[in-house]
Amino acid sequence: MNLDRLAESLREYLGTTRKHTIKNIVGIFDEKGTNPSFGEDAAIIEHGDEALLLAADGIWDKLMRADPEWSGYCSVLVNVHDIAAMGGRPLGMVDVFSSNSDEITRKVLKGMKDGIDKFGVPVVGGHVHPDTPYAALDVAILGIAKKDCIIYSSTARPGDDIVLAIDLDGRVHPSCDLNWDSTYLKDASIVRWQVASMVELAEKKLLTAGKDVSNPGIIGTLGMLLEVSGVGADVYLDLMPKPDGVTMDHWLKMYPGMGFIVTCKPENTDKVIGVYNDHKLNASKIGKVVPARRLDLVRGTERATVFDFTKHEITGLGPARGRCNSL
Amino acid sequence: MNLDRLAESLREYLGTTRKHTIKNIVGIFDEKGTNPSFGEDAAIIEHGDEALLLAADGIWDKLMRADPEWSGYCSVLVNVHDIAAMGGRPLGMVDVFSSNSDEITRKVLKGMKDGIDKFGVPVVGGHVHPDTPYAALDVAILGIAKKDCIIYSSTARPGDDIVLAIDLDGRVHPSCDLNWDSTYLKDASIVRWQVASMVELAEKKLLTAGKDVSNPGIIGTLGMLLEVSGVGADVYLDLMPKPDGVTMDHWLKMYPGMGFIVTCKPENTDKVIGVYNDHKLNASKIGKVVPARRLDLVRGTERATVFDFTKHEITGLGPARGRCNSL
Repeated sequence: MNLDRLAESLREYLGTTRKHTIKNIVGIFDEKGTNPSFGEDAAIIEHGDEALLLAADGIWDKLMRADPEWSGYCSVLVNVHDIAAMGGRPLGMVDVFSSNSDEITRKVLKGMKDGIDKFGVPVVGGHVHPDTPYAALDVAILGIAKKDCIIYSSTARPGDDIVLAIDLDGRVHPSCDLNWDSTYLKDASIVRWQVASMVELAEKKLLTAGKDVSNPGIIGTLGMLLEVSGVGADVYLDLMPKPDGVTMDHWLKMYPGMGFIVTCKPENTDKVIGVYNDHKLNASKIGKVVPARRLDLVRGTERATVFDFTKHEITGLGPARGRCNSL
Repeated sequence: MNLDRLAESLREYLGTTRKHTIKNIVGIFDEKGTNPSFGEDAAIIEHGDEALLLAADGIWDKLMRADPEWSGYCSVLVNVHDIAAMGGRPLGMVDVFSSNSDEITRKVLKGMKDGIDKFGVPVVGGHVHPDTPYAALDVAILGIAKKDCIIYSSTARPGDDIVLAIDLDGRVHPSCDLNWDSTYLKDASIVRWQVASMVELAEKKLLTAGKDVSNPGIIGTLGMLLEVSGVGADVYLDLMPKPDGVTMDHWLKMYPGMGFIVTCKPENTDKVIGVYNDHKLNASKIGKVVPARRLDLVRGTERATVFDFTKHEITGLGPARGRCNSL
């Protein structure tokens, strides 16, 4: 695909454009100094030397209609990753599940149970609506981290390297073309060890910023990180790891079950890649953080802008939003 | 209303019968020793000398369709009460909000903001689906309590007195006949002081068990407490506080914005009522815990059974379910 067309395709991707609403929501809650951690994967509540991490994620209704069992599994997967992305350890989850049929209930719960068994994080409580006209699954997770070892989204700085960690040993999920599934068929011990890479990187303080790759895909997620950090990036497509048999356009829009996009000082890049490799993840430097507020794709001598943050908004949160809440 | 008919009406009330599904859900999650705190208002995760409390509540879709703004407000109200019911202090909330129109979004967020301002608990993060075919709002809350001062649902014992604390100074909510609203029009300082009654009772260790009165109403909520405690009760209707202009059948099915049903040793009953009165809540002894596993209504010399727990299930969780999770 022509680089300009690829950039445009990524910019217009629904997984990214639906993040626009966040700004309006945050605007309402932030008015009276409640200082929320919007823009981060989890909210941070400081507590002594520790930080309590609280996150919530809902299953996109398109996915629920396509595959309730996979939706149940993903509800665990995405929440565990929200805590991992901050460098935290997950403690437990609660769910609110609304169902319109016994069959959907059975499938969703089967998927959630598979996720719990895979990632080893318990569902400790929740709420169920057995009689709604729709099926919806929302899960919240509590995690914990050392207060001085948190990985933020908003702290990438010009000159940092950008590293993508991902598991290329996977499959396009049979019921969702936009899911790169590398966890469902893999042994729980490997999957948990992959997730634990982020705690090690956090506690060794090797990163300047990071996120788990979520619905907006690799480029959309990086865009969100850059937007809240108030910086830009050059992404080198020639360095982008990609499984065989998937086009670059498709790949860059996929939600990978196990993927992290992080930034680090150049002197730490090899160490960061080393930690990921030890944790059985593919990891590569894929770009550089730059002061200019735009995300460019670079391929050989070609260059195309996906996001010009002076004109386009993803979340619209802008740089340096409130970072944490004290007790 | 004839006492037998009242008992039957309460037993068949949808707010209570829809709790039946809980058993099936818990059965799935509990299989491999994840030891969840189902049956309690919040899940307990022990952490040093403290207990982290994690709860989630979703807005019933009937309420969302009737009044999105009131739904937004109630999402905060119910979560704050889940933490209060355990004797905890709320720290922060996260929400997952799915919306199918800008108007509903605006109303729900207005209601949530009113709730945040009223109860003083921030929304620290969340997730938004701006494009779902339905509107749904699920909120999770994190709270904290001293580990040895938690109020459980499952610890009522025969011989205990049953105390109802409630604010009679309120109104039937204009858009929901089953909501007794005593908080929306009241000053935030009074409402917060009412909620704080539960922390004082917890830290003075004056209660044997307790819950906030939720959708199943006063009798349905007490029934859930008795069921997980493995006991029964006589409830004296002549002692039941009730606002003027509302029938007893209607009153006992209402969700009061501010209501707690608790048990205590008879020697502490006056102290418990005193703490509630200090906190500007009406409080009365309304019954006794008995060993027989049934909830009876008593009026003068009449008696009628609402729940016979050897035959009827509310949550189906049975007595003495797992109580807490250690780190």
